[in-house]
Amino acid sequence: MAHQGEDMKAARGRTTIDVDEVKYLLWGGKEEWNKHSKIVEIVSKDPVFDKSQNPHITRKERYKRGLAINKRLLDLQDKHGWSDQDVRSAFAVSDAATSLNLHYVAFLPVILSQGSEEQVRTYGAMAAAHAILGAYAQTELGHGTQVSNLETTATYIPETQEFELHTPRLESMKWWIGALAKLATHCVVQARLILPDGDKGPHLFLLQIRSLDDHRILPGITLGDIGPKAFGASTTTDNGYMKLDRVRVPRTAMLSKFANVTPEGKYKVPVHSKLSYGGMVYIRATMISQGGWLTGKAATIAIRYTTVRRQGNGPPGQEKQVIIYPSVYHRLLPALSRAYAWIFVGREMVKLYSAMSAQLAQQSTALLAETHAVSSGLKVLVTSSTSADLETARRSMGGHGYSAASGVGSLWANWVPSNTYEGDNYVLVQQVVRAALKTLQSLVTSANPAKFASSLPPSTYFLRLLVNTPKPPSADWSIPSAIELLELRAAHMVQEHASRVKADVQDGGANWRVARAVTEAFVARRIGDAIEQAQKELSRRTAAYVTALMRLYLLTTLESGLVDLLSFDLLPKPAAPTATPTATGKQWSVDAVSNSAGAGRDPTRGLRTAIADLEKEILPQAIGLTDAFGFTDYELDSALGVYDGKAYENLFKRAQLEPLNEKEVVDGYEEFIKPILERGRNLIEKGKAKL
Amino acid sequence: MAHQGEDMKAARGRTTIDVDEVKYLLWGGKEEWNKHSKIVEIVSKDPVFDKSQNPHITRKERYKRGLAINKRLLDLQDKHGWSDQDVRSAFAVSDAATSLNLHYVAFLPVILSQGSEEQVRTYGAMAAAHAILGAYAQTELGHGTQVSNLETTATYIPETQEFELHTPRLESMKWWIGALAKLATHCVVQARLILPDGDKGPHLFLLQIRSLDDHRILPGITLGDIGPKAFGASTTTDNGYMKLDRVRVPRTAMLSKFANVTPEGKYKVPVHSKLSYGGMVYIRATMISQGGWLTGKAATIAIRYTTVRRQGNGPPGQEKQVIIYPSVYHRLLPALSRAYAWIFVGREMVKLYSAMSAQLAQQSTALLAETHAVSSGLKVLVTSSTSADLETARRSMGGHGYSAASGVGSLWANWVPSNTYEGDNYVLVQQVVRAALKTLQSLVTSANPAKFASSLPPSTYFLRLLVNTPKPPSADWSIPSAIELLELRAAHMVQEHASRVKADVQDGGANWRVARAVTEAFVARRIGDAIEQAQKELSRRTAAYVTALMRLYLLTTLESGLVDLLSFDLLPKPAAPTATPTATGKQWSVDAVSNSAGAGRDPTRGLRTAIADLEKEILPQAIGLTDAFGFTDYELDSALGVYDGKAYENLFKRAQLEPLNEKEVVDGYEEFIKPILERGRNLIEKGKAKL
Repeated sequence: MAHQGEDMKAARGRTTIDVDEVKYLLWGGKEEWNKHSKIVEIVSKDPVFDKSQNPHITRKERYKRGLAINKRLLDLQDKHGWSDQDVRSAFAVSDAATSLNLHYVAFLPVILSQGSEEQVRTYGAMAAAHAILGAYAQTELGHGTQVSNLETTATYIPETQEFELHTPRLESMKWWIGALAKLATHCVVQARLILPDGDKGPHLFLLQIRSLDDHRILPGITLGDIGPKAFGASTTTDNGYMKLDRVRVPRTAMLSKFANVTPEGKYKVPVHSKLSYGGMVYIRATMISQGGWLTGKAATIAIRYTTVRRQGNGPPGQEKQVIIYPSVYHRLLPALSRAYAWIFVGREMVKLYSAMSAQLAQQSTALLAETHAVSSGLKVLVTSSTSADLETARRSMGGHGYSAASGVGSLWANWVPSNTYEGDNYVLVQQVVRAALKTLQSLVTSANPAKFASSLPPSTYFLRLLVNTPKPPSADWSIPSAIELLELRAAHMVQEHASRVKADVQDGGANWRVARAVTEAFVARRIGDAIEQAQKELSRRTAAYVTALMRLYLLTTLESGLVDLLSFDLLPKPAAPTATPTATGKQWSVDAVSNSAGAGRDPTRGLRTAIADLEKEILPQAIGLTDAFGFTDYELDSALGVYDGKAYENLFKRAQLEPLNEKEVVDGYEEFIKPILERGRNLIEKGKAKL
Repeated sequence: MAHQGEDMKAARGRTTIDVDEVKYLLWGGKEEWNKHSKIVEIVSKDPVFDKSQNPHITRKERYKRGLAINKRLLDLQDKHGWSDQDVRSAFAVSDAATSLNLHYVAFLPVILSQGSEEQVRTYGAMAAAHAILGAYAQTELGHGTQVSNLETTATYIPETQEFELHTPRLESMKWWIGALAKLATHCVVQARLILPDGDKGPHLFLLQIRSLDDHRILPGITLGDIGPKAFGASTTTDNGYMKLDRVRVPRTAMLSKFANVTPEGKYKVPVHSKLSYGGMVYIRATMISQGGWLTGKAATIAIRYTTVRRQGNGPPGQEKQVIIYPSVYHRLLPALSRAYAWIFVGREMVKLYSAMSAQLAQQSTALLAETHAVSSGLKVLVTSSTSADLETARRSMGGHGYSAASGVGSLWANWVPSNTYEGDNYVLVQQVVRAALKTLQSLVTSANPAKFASSLPPSTYFLRLLVNTPKPPSADWSIPSAIELLELRAAHMVQEHASRVKADVQDGGANWRVARAVTEAFVARRIGDAIEQAQKELSRRTAAYVTALMRLYLLTTLESGLVDLLSFDLLPKPAAPTATPTATGKQWSVDAVSNSAGAGRDPTRGLRTAIADLEKEILPQAIGLTDAFGFTDYELDSALGVYDGKAYENLFKRAQLEPLNEKEVVDGYEEFIKPILERGRNLIEKGKAKL
């Protein structure tokens, strides 16, 4: 009988790519990898970061463990001289996602980007030192991302030079605010500024909520945890609510980099209101490669497990490895290709964000619209694709995939809210589409469309094809053809959508489809660039497989866009069949009873065959291409995805940790099971049992 | 400001359908509804069935609560004279899904269907009376549904007339067996029968695993719980493992309705081995309408919440109701239509199963293949669609959808394993496709295809269209056209697939697509029947809306099959546009820069516009159409989906139950938070803080 360890060794032995080369490509260089690797080693050996009890303890206990991790991370920072970035990496490795993370990604940045110089100097420094711990309180029970409709007010009182912060009704309570319920000592509150001469809309105010002496809640403030999240997820974050009953803060509590209130209560208008938007894009920008690494984790686990799991016909122990089935690898290899794609594109996204930030610092908003459009489109594409891929990977593992020990369920459970937070995906697609339509309009009303087309930004570069329609791409399914097809599709989709909008044609799914086509065209070009880069950095054989994987990304993206390609007659035509099969005696022929021209002439067959061929080519490298992410067993935290392949041994080991296994006879036997059995015995004895 | 309660009242007031009429239609009559309603009343008032602590207690505690529910259900049965069916209904209402359910759906049926008359009389009666509690132990750690490869052996020892049950290695352990770990006193073990003259393959053996005196585990048997499931789900089921170390059972322990072993160890061959297959279909058959009711729950919650949630532009409290946005109702109304569809089709499925069972009892297997094909196809379609719809409903609720209090997350978490259990969906689709190809082959090799086509069973009725190709359906998007289009699509897909198989063309996604087309054609005809039935039972206005909802099911099913319809040129052509818009002055025109014939000529626009129109027509009845499921607040267990619409009040109330809210200062403050703050204060005081 085949042993799982041997199956894994054999599969790894078949790898012909240079795994380290690919690892450095994914990590952005050998140095980055080494730095990361050292952090992983420290964290994974430290008992504070042990993950084994997580599935078994209460939320309260997990929250406390999260606090212990916070403390330990700072100890490690002091001990090893870690940078703040190193601390974040350690956070990510530990999977803890505690509330302190909110301090880093929400509270601190908002002070730094929205505070006056003095506020940055005082509060920014305190926050950076962890002398205060904070939350960013925007969302309210009755209102989400629509900031203009927040109900919390900050009414200026000229007499005392104070603001009175107030949540007028139940619905106005701040809600969902991470770190607010238990950890934070301070928060930045988003509230409508009410001045003697009227409502000036939402502004930001720094508010202390807990005593720095004993952590007790300050007067006028009601705080609480909003309760458990779905899917048993995010237990280490204390998402909180806050009710404010006319709480006073000094005039200097308003974050005033862009707007200010004079002692008399006059409003000083922001110089350039758009300059304050940059921060909103940051979190979205970082989500792209994060989605890639997560998809990589799930693909690693599922590809390893399906390599050592055997099922189907054949004597026991000699059945086929599950990964060999086309219906399995046709799900997993495209997911793997998206993991690589999001990591590559995410790096470009962060570069774009940095360029924009640098410009904003120079008072230029030139890149703002482009960065907003690109980050919105990518955020939607990557959060939704990653959610789907994580679940696809889990289901590909069959029954054991539903065990918490598979490790993939919790990845999904913690990731899936990204579809609705930081801008609900269905709201964001409207903005992506609006931006594309705007550029289309500029293009068609331009005095010189050809010239305009030659200066399109990356987000709408594909629109050039409406001016210079190229020869239709050939059916070679090459990388350049695939990229151009995805661009042509986007161009046609945007043009069609403009016509739909003009004619006021209703279609509740249109924005979603158009935004996807637009974003996939953008990604396609970036993948083209990434392939060029990979071919420069990698040795030839290795580059060939990374290129094949990226081609698989492009072709399966085309496959998912087939409705559009067929609708606009963009799909390259397959060659005409050489001969029509005929009925031969007893053997049936598909054409014998058919009088439809469509039979046996599926125009999608060429693309799908190209995908199948490509998958077969990549399959023997699947273990190498997943090993290249460099995940340790500690990071994967999966019984099924262990490096050595010994999934069953690990499942058994983990089952021993289940608290129900502590006792031979379960709690409740005397009270509930025994009486049921006795009742049954009585029925039998009295002949009252019936079938 | 609009109050949520008023929004809900107003929406309910706009309903013009007769909600009770629809309720009786869905429940299969007024009498059925009343019976159900009484059970709900009893269960929901009983504190044993209280759900409020479920998100907060440990798995051990939840398991014990599950045991209490088991006991209480039998008390209620005795008290109210409930039938076994009533007990199952109460189970479903309570959401408990405890291990006792496995006793009912797996252990008891296998004894009744596979046991000899004497075994049924003794063990069947004991199981029915609950004098013994059981599990059905088939799956092993290393093997899933491939029964022939199970490794557990039952070796016959003629000397003592006993079987020796044994699990030879770690991988052979029984695994995932519900009720086995803690509840069961007995189980039916699937094991390979080893006789002196060889291996006879898998057979069933009754095995006592725990003492009936003190519930302790019997010698030679190792039992344990396999540990937590993903997504915090199924906590009340003790999925277990079992290791058997040469455990002896008497010769009479082998379930012997169809096969037997003589005292000498000779094998008595089953009369008709297929007669034993019926039971496998039963669970799948019941899953169809179950998926419908679940989708109905999620649709009810999401439609209610999006009716009372306001977001977007407008003064606070007067923003649009979220349900008004096309991107929202375009997700929820099709989900609602599928809830109805699965309930209607599920009823037909159970009828088909009953007809098959009646035939099997008469030694006839005539309906077996048809029932197997239909139940497999429906199982795949409904489990995957329902999983998708539950998650769509949850995400449509934005941020609050991620609160456990939304109630939808746990529905999904408990349902999603249905994609991989009772036959993995990717395995089952192969069988659906194989059955369709087999019928196609019979059709094309038939001496009289026209005659053959006229006697096709429902599962492949659509294949008649290959013989008598009809005039292409018109673009009226009527119910008959839609049904025929779905049938045409299936016919072409199966024919194309036959050609693909013949030519050995690889395509890892083909089985999935073909099986979906086949099953959706079958469902389309059933929906046609259900519409006729509804029009008979309902008053005119009400019938019109139920018909509209079912038409929406058909049209959105067509939309999801657009790739196929376009590939085989089946999509009815839209009328030619009356005039091409031209560029007029400064206003842009979509055609101005286009030289592609496809622009503005999206062939899918007609279908999508028909869907949009239909959704607008149905939208005002959405609250009525969901009220018609008859779910109480207890059953929905959702803060967002409460009948009176007061979602925010309910969210706040539920937050108060969070254990973290018991203390003002969180456990761990002294140990972890205080030192972090002190460290920060030190850094600031020493001037060592850096930004």
